[in-house]
Amino acid sequence: MTNYHKPEAKTIAKLSDLANLLRIHSLEATQASKSGHPTSCSSMAEIMSVLFFHTMRYKVSEPRDASSDRFILSKGHAAPILYAAWAEAGLFPTKDLMNLRKLESDLEGHPTPRLNFVDVATGSLGQGLSVAAGMAYVGKYFDKASYRTYCLIGDGESAEGSIWEALAFASHYKLDNLCAIFDVNRLGQSEPTALQHNMEVYRKRVEAFGFNALVVDGHDVEELVKAFHEAAETKGRPTAIIAKTFKGKNFVNGIEDNFSWHGKPIVGESGQQVIKHLQAMIKSSSFDRKIPAPVEDAPKVNIGNVKLDSQPSYKLGEQVATRVAYGTALAKIAKNNERVIGLDGDTKNSTYAEKIKGIDANRFVEGYIAEQNLVGVAIGAACRDRTVAFVSAFAAFFTRAFDQIRMGAISQTNVNFVGSHCGVSIGEDGPSQMALEDIAMFRSIPGSTVFYPSDAVSTERAVELAANTQGICFIRTSRPATPVIYKNDEPLAIGKGKLVLKHDNDQALVIGAGITLHESIKAADIVAKMGINVRVIDPFTVKPIDKELIIEHARACGGKIVVVEDHYMQGGLGEAVLEAVAEEAGIVVRKVAVKEMPRSGKPDELLRRYGIDADSIAKQVENFVRH
Amino acid sequence: MTNYHKPEAKTIAKLSDLANLLRIHSLEATQASKSGHPTSCSSMAEIMSVLFFHTMRYKVSEPRDASSDRFILSKGHAAPILYAAWAEAGLFPTKDLMNLRKLESDLEGHPTPRLNFVDVATGSLGQGLSVAAGMAYVGKYFDKASYRTYCLIGDGESAEGSIWEALAFASHYKLDNLCAIFDVNRLGQSEPTALQHNMEVYRKRVEAFGFNALVVDGHDVEELVKAFHEAAETKGRPTAIIAKTFKGKNFVNGIEDNFSWHGKPIVGESGQQVIKHLQAMIKSSSFDRKIPAPVEDAPKVNIGNVKLDSQPSYKLGEQVATRVAYGTALAKIAKNNERVIGLDGDTKNSTYAEKIKGIDANRFVEGYIAEQNLVGVAIGAACRDRTVAFVSAFAAFFTRAFDQIRMGAISQTNVNFVGSHCGVSIGEDGPSQMALEDIAMFRSIPGSTVFYPSDAVSTERAVELAANTQGICFIRTSRPATPVIYKNDEPLAIGKGKLVLKHDNDQALVIGAGITLHESIKAADIVAKMGINVRVIDPFTVKPIDKELIIEHARACGGKIVVVEDHYMQGGLGEAVLEAVAEEAGIVVRKVAVKEMPRSGKPDELLRRYGIDADSIAKQVENFVRH
Repeated sequence: MTNYHKPEAKTIAKLSDLANLLRIHSLEATQASKSGHPTSCSSMAEIMSVLFFHTMRYKVSEPRDASSDRFILSKGHAAPILYAAWAEAGLFPTKDLMNLRKLESDLEGHPTPRLNFVDVATGSLGQGLSVAAGMAYVGKYFDKASYRTYCLIGDGESAEGSIWEALAFASHYKLDNLCAIFDVNRLGQSEPTALQHNMEVYRKRVEAFGFNALVVDGHDVEELVKAFHEAAETKGRPTAIIAKTFKGKNFVNGIEDNFSWHGKPIVGESGQQVIKHLQAMIKSSSFDRKIPAPVEDAPKVNIGNVKLDSQPSYKLGEQVATRVAYGTALAKIAKNNERVIGLDGDTKNSTYAEKIKGIDANRFVEGYIAEQNLVGVAIGAACRDRTVAFVSAFAAFFTRAFDQIRMGAISQTNVNFVGSHCGVSIGEDGPSQMALEDIAMFRSIPGSTVFYPSDAVSTERAVELAANTQGICFIRTSRPATPVIYKNDEPLAIGKGKLVLKHDNDQALVIGAGITLHESIKAADIVAKMGINVRVIDPFTVKPIDKELIIEHARACGGKIVVVEDHYMQGGLGEAVLEAVAEEAGIVVRKVAVKEMPRSGKPDELLRRYGIDADSIAKQVENFVRH
Repeated sequence: MTNYHKPEAKTIAKLSDLANLLRIHSLEATQASKSGHPTSCSSMAEIMSVLFFHTMRYKVSEPRDASSDRFILSKGHAAPILYAAWAEAGLFPTKDLMNLRKLESDLEGHPTPRLNFVDVATGSLGQGLSVAAGMAYVGKYFDKASYRTYCLIGDGESAEGSIWEALAFASHYKLDNLCAIFDVNRLGQSEPTALQHNMEVYRKRVEAFGFNALVVDGHDVEELVKAFHEAAETKGRPTAIIAKTFKGKNFVNGIEDNFSWHGKPIVGESGQQVIKHLQAMIKSSSFDRKIPAPVEDAPKVNIGNVKLDSQPSYKLGEQVATRVAYGTALAKIAKNNERVIGLDGDTKNSTYAEKIKGIDANRFVEGYIAEQNLVGVAIGAACRDRTVAFVSAFAAFFTRAFDQIRMGAISQTNVNFVGSHCGVSIGEDGPSQMALEDIAMFRSIPGSTVFYPSDAVSTERAVELAANTQGICFIRTSRPATPVIYKNDEPLAIGKGKLVLKHDNDQALVIGAGITLHESIKAADIVAKMGINVRVIDPFTVKPIDKELIIEHARACGGKIVVVEDHYMQGGLGEAVLEAVAEEAGIVVRKVAVKEMPRSGKPDELLRRYGIDADSIAKQVENFVRH
């Protein structure tokens, strides 16, 4: 190992003392909050003291500084010691730690980016390493900067498959600027972990997944200093430090390594004794807290005002699948801004994400078939506004990453999700490949925007709008080609629907999107022959939905709305419309959607069988208007 | 290796010929359907011929026979060769294979249990091994029978973390009756896999995860026969056969090992040439298709009419958390029927699933922190009606397994999901631990039943009802203790709500569930003091919801409904109520729910802050009634 200088004895002593000081803060904060996980903090105290007061290069005063090393606490329940480390580093007064978990404090039970030193929320286990890998990917390949990314993982959460997806991703892309630390404290919440202290199994697994694996005593400051040095010196592959630790380390009264102490504050007499014991272990009277400065080599980045590099150029009536238009638009905005990136999990030739490679092959990230990690990487890549990330998959397979998406919202991520192959209109592949619950999923995310464009022009605009919209955006694209219905310069906006068809004496308002908008337009012709006029609205965004437009035109049609969607009955466009008119007296809604588990067949056959083709819509309209 | 006898030359020749015959069927079927994945079938043809015509012991005439070996095709897109194998085994005429992917055929694009030889649906990648592990767990520990479980996994899908969760689970529980086969054909959909033909990396990873790993030439019938024999002889750990194969093996015209041929039928002249080539490779004119008979030692099982072993016994007004009542009820039904099992992922002391251990410790399956595998194992354990499976977690963490749950519905599973810690009422742990989208998720599943019990009595009944209900059931339980409001003998039924409060001159109907039912009852007292009477309904099940009861009482209250839930605005109880009254003129609904990303705090503080406590509900009612 080159350049390694054993730290001076006083440095070792300082880091040991700081570890115990962090333990005391974790104990006192959880005593004050009467809840939390002090024993989970204690096992990682030396790791934190070495990282925050020796290894990491960062600006305390500016935690989101572009060039500073990053730290992700994957085991988010150990939040108190993360907060304590930043307080001891000088970001805020240590007395604030006593506000842990209080309503008016941002020192929440698990870390969120409400705190300026937290890049992404953690607390749903096993997600941190994917995010860290996304940040490291950006650091190595886009920023090309010196900062390193550290991710601390609990042993319990290392049972999550997403951790192994992330390890495979990080080694495949040779992310030698990433360092994973496994805090192997042997004990889970309700019983010991499956592997307990079987360090060699951890080593073998992590090595097999392509990491430089270093097994260390996680309470030995010197070993940790050396391991972090080796990690920084190791080129061509990431390093994992597998630290053997004890839960509740240095907690007297039988608490250390005792499985019954998960998630419990240590209060009363016993708590006092533990603190006294820790205080007695601290030898220094004051600490030098000089923190190494970062190498200031991360570029400035501007991700504002991303535009389509050229306008949509389609002919009205031209047959174009919206998934293809997505690829076209992604390439256009990538041409406009060098920080636009595309990610996909081996479906790039189906989602058309691969079109970005025509602009810049390096701006595409192949995540292989591992959607949880794919989404985590996107969240990591987008955080701190380093990139504008578009992640695509068959929409059905975003269900694989619902937990990551949910956590993405808590992380205040701006990742854009593009899901193709929605609904029964995909045809022969059958129900496993059909997204029929994706709108329900993305609508439920706080602050989300859900686009459901119905033609190529509006799809391109959806991509442009999404790139400039805060929060999670979802764009639902379709497999079959459908006609272009908007002019290339049609103005489109979030929350603004389009009145597509209108007569003077309409008897119902029909709302459809994607394939069902086109079927609704055809249905309007069918019912016209029965003497029933209807108007048709394309909502463009399902969330927010254009409440005013819907109410105005529903009232103009006698209060009757028929809403048709290629989605299950619950949580989709139909319920978005119901929500919009919930408090409106005199408006009734017929929801038409896929009511049962569909099967394989031709797209047209399936639309008919599940009652969402033009004929079925016409029958629903006739029945609803006349009865 | 004991007992191994090298097969006779004619057996080897037969199995090779059958492999090519299966290739031909896969080609012809996908030519007929004009879509599908013949090259993905071809790489696994020898594996299929050896398994189906040499290794596996099963009854062709009775594919779900309790004692027969099981086969799960995790790479579901290779369905045509699975169908071909069963046709060649004699289950149905081979000419039926030409109905692949047609609307009126059950030979769908990906396998589903509409076919009697398919136990679980596959097609969302990386899920098969968890299900197979669940079946093997039941075979070894509950059935204690001789049948073995085989699962064929694609190399592309082996990037899914769920595969590694399943490997870890299977080795931890020493499932030596399980055999995983990796079909390493090097090519994904859009590019080569990350590991291509790096067989040693596969071997190391799979060995590190505790399997006996055998790397073989996947096109060498004799090697395969030997490897499957070794797998059957290996005790104390499961075996993985890692087969080096070629996509499109034996397909001439440059198709073999060529990455551009994923998911494409081979038609026209080229298709004919490939078939001719394969025909020429087949040497035998007829085949002996004798299939080894199973050892008939699986017990008969009765999972019908599961009952609470003793009635609920609570006092009205007693404070009991519904999560605790869940544990009590699980233990009671476990006492009543020996096939009731509980599964949890290291939260059993929070969900109270651990109570089943008091009845029979063996009936609890610890899945550790790996929810995807946990759900897959439950689906495997419940299939073929071998067990009544209850799987529990914090409800928020079922989002981790949404894809598995979605596939579970296609698999016609009867697994019961119990999600605790719903909503902001959990308090200090913060948003990562709060389920606020769980109802939206479970409502969207076709055929699901969603219970949201509000007291201990109704929770016990929900558990009893779920145990006897087809399809996916979800029971949402709460963390805080709430008063018992029903008598122990209260009749409760799916789709039947309870009118909890009523006056003659009610001006609004308030609907709440769980914590918000109790807050709504308190709110009724508050508004009564303002001179506003309301009635209150507990829906008991959110899906199906008691439409008749709601409409009847909404009409009796002047058509005004206020619905309050500890869930986000979208997809939850509010939208279930909107759906129920969608076509009812004159009924208006005010939805009250959590509108923004919540934060840490005390439960009462959070209910207030997010507007779902009694005072907030009272204000909403007053405003809605008076304006």
